[in-house]
Amino acid sequence: MKEKLTLMIPGPTPVPERVLKALSKHPIGHRSREFQDIVKSTTELLKWLHQTKGDVLTITGSGTAAMEAGIINTLSKGDKVICGENGKFGERWVKVAKAYGLEVITVKANWGEPLDPENFKNLLNDHQDIRAVIITHSETSTGVINDLEKISSYVKHHKNAITIADCVTSIGACEVKMDDWGVDVIASGSQKGYMMPPGLSFVAMSEKAWQANIRSDLPKFYLDLISYKKTVDKDSNPFTPGVNLYFALEEALIMMKEEGLESIFMRHQRHMKATQEAMKSIGLNLFAKNGFGSPSITSIMPEGIDAEKIRKTVKEDFDILLAGGQDNLKGKIFRIGHLGFINDRDIITAIASIEATLNKLGKSKYPIGTGVAIATKILNERSN
Amino acid sequence: MKEKLTLMIPGPTPVPERVLKALSKHPIGHRSREFQDIVKSTTELLKWLHQTKGDVLTITGSGTAAMEAGIINTLSKGDKVICGENGKFGERWVKVAKAYGLEVITVKANWGEPLDPENFKNLLNDHQDIRAVIITHSETSTGVINDLEKISSYVKHHKNAITIADCVTSIGACEVKMDDWGVDVIASGSQKGYMMPPGLSFVAMSEKAWQANIRSDLPKFYLDLISYKKTVDKDSNPFTPGVNLYFALEEALIMMKEEGLESIFMRHQRHMKATQEAMKSIGLNLFAKNGFGSPSITSIMPEGIDAEKIRKTVKEDFDILLAGGQDNLKGKIFRIGHLGFINDRDIITAIASIEATLNKLGKSKYPIGTGVAIATKILNERSN
Repeated sequence: MKEKLTLMIPGPTPVPERVLKALSKHPIGHRSREFQDIVKSTTELLKWLHQTKGDVLTITGSGTAAMEAGIINTLSKGDKVICGENGKFGERWVKVAKAYGLEVITVKANWGEPLDPENFKNLLNDHQDIRAVIITHSETSTGVINDLEKISSYVKHHKNAITIADCVTSIGACEVKMDDWGVDVIASGSQKGYMMPPGLSFVAMSEKAWQANIRSDLPKFYLDLISYKKTVDKDSNPFTPGVNLYFALEEALIMMKEEGLESIFMRHQRHMKATQEAMKSIGLNLFAKNGFGSPSITSIMPEGIDAEKIRKTVKEDFDILLAGGQDNLKGKIFRIGHLGFINDRDIITAIASIEATLNKLGKSKYPIGTGVAIATKILNERSN
Repeated sequence: MKEKLTLMIPGPTPVPERVLKALSKHPIGHRSREFQDIVKSTTELLKWLHQTKGDVLTITGSGTAAMEAGIINTLSKGDKVICGENGKFGERWVKVAKAYGLEVITVKANWGEPLDPENFKNLLNDHQDIRAVIITHSETSTGVINDLEKISSYVKHHKNAITIADCVTSIGACEVKMDDWGVDVIASGSQKGYMMPPGLSFVAMSEKAWQANIRSDLPKFYLDLISYKKTVDKDSNPFTPGVNLYFALEEALIMMKEEGLESIFMRHQRHMKATQEAMKSIGLNLFAKNGFGSPSITSIMPEGIDAEKIRKTVKEDFDILLAGGQDNLKGKIFRIGHLGFINDRDIITAIASIEATLNKLGKSKYPIGTGVAIATKILNERSN
């Protein structure tokens, strides 16, 4: 049976009917008053979501475009930066920094473990010429959350440095207090917590980030944030934006506002806990170090079973798409995305399907239903 | 009355119901077999549309992103290039070239006039170190078509140079024979002849363009076409693409294939002629030099009437959105987009609305219906 797919990968995530309907409206002129109204309202809602009074700029492109924009608009050739690297996305930002001739000091952690904030503190103390700390908040490839709040607290007191954070799978899933934490640049993408299809990405810029922009000399045009800043102040865009994606964005942000930030974050916490405990209860090991699981993605490293075999069977038998491991984790882990438009039913369904799959593969160690029972108990703690 | 807008601007253009329906399907995983099938089929159809055996790469971004990608993937810092400049987009490519430290020689023509191919020939003869000729095929800001075929024929025999062409409002509207004409890089955007919403853009690369890529040293990451080439060869993308926009692209390209290239081009020619002759017949001057009107956009420079007044009245009274003039042409011209999903009814409707508007403004020199009559006659020459 086709057309009944459930997405539980860390993006694209499921999209509500309301948002799909908005997406499929006839396009309008991107220089019209009607479209300016949408730019204005989405910009305000994006600021609300980022908990910032600063700018949030919308780019037509992927999250990588937004992250690259954050880097190349605040730095200059030869600048010294620290990159946190404990997964595929951390690695990617190292590549971007090197492509633009930045001098990169890496802070590494094993995949599955979080970055140690004290390493950043020490390096910042030792290198007064550091211009930026570039880190991934929720490492999508491993399902690990890094301590953005603590790391940026160390950067905040440094003379020159700014914090540039990939919040692609954390924004809209857990607290990201841009202004309170003193994060200077936040990049994210539409196909994640935003509950809409891919195609738009977002760069939030603090006042300190704009100050850094003044001396930035890296070449850019499409990703030159000055053009976006000048036009967003007139409720417009420098280039033809994804007009229909903006329709979807507006509807999705309205839905998020209706639910409320606190409720959204609590929902993701409950889903994370339910998924983690259910997996452990059926003998499947969590890949992320205890206490550092991402609110958006739970990575499982099963022992004695090919992770891809589980993932493929869940897809074939139940049409739930889980994510596999990337690079050296291929075949070793699978990842459950519980990000964005996910309700309790999706969580127990995924768990039940994984239990049924283990049973089919002759790998069940516990009675079917064990995981669902644990998850249900945790999900019921809604009112606590 | 709301919700009955007709778009007759040079982008976004109207989108067929079939394409909007495709757009609003639930997203799927961008690394799935199902999505790879879409990448494969759209890539083949894009090659057909570009009349090339070379590569056509799809970027999530605007046409400007595609054009920038074409420039920064084939050139190096300090390279000498010729930019054709006879409108706003010509100016933009000069800005991109300068942003990346290229040495720019401009070939100018007055806005409304085409670039003189002989100027390119002479410059290419005088400068054996020219690395690229950068031109706009259909200048969207003025409604002028430049002679891409002739200009690229001169570039073809030059030792080093390649032709980089902005075909944003020509591809899917008139002949663009990439291989036959020897055009090396072609950039375009989805919200034009493609009959779909904005958000995707396309860069076609010839073998000579890939050769130039080898020595290109300009920094890039999101727009690094090597990543797109490596992944498209596996029916995939380097970053999360606009998945739903791809659904729309596939449907729109299938519709174009059904209509056939020759029919599409003839339709645009008939619409261009009908619009031009109708405007002249009611005393409105064409802005583009005679014989150099774009197949996609007809620019009108009315005498003794504020062009914005006509444009706004047509919008208010008939809900047809025409485009205004840009920069120094603001208030002096208005532009009728007849690009993409436009049928004969749209053409006579636009003409009738303009006639009614002139009448309302007390500026009619000819009986209402004069323009419609001329247009109808030309549109009826369908079978000739």
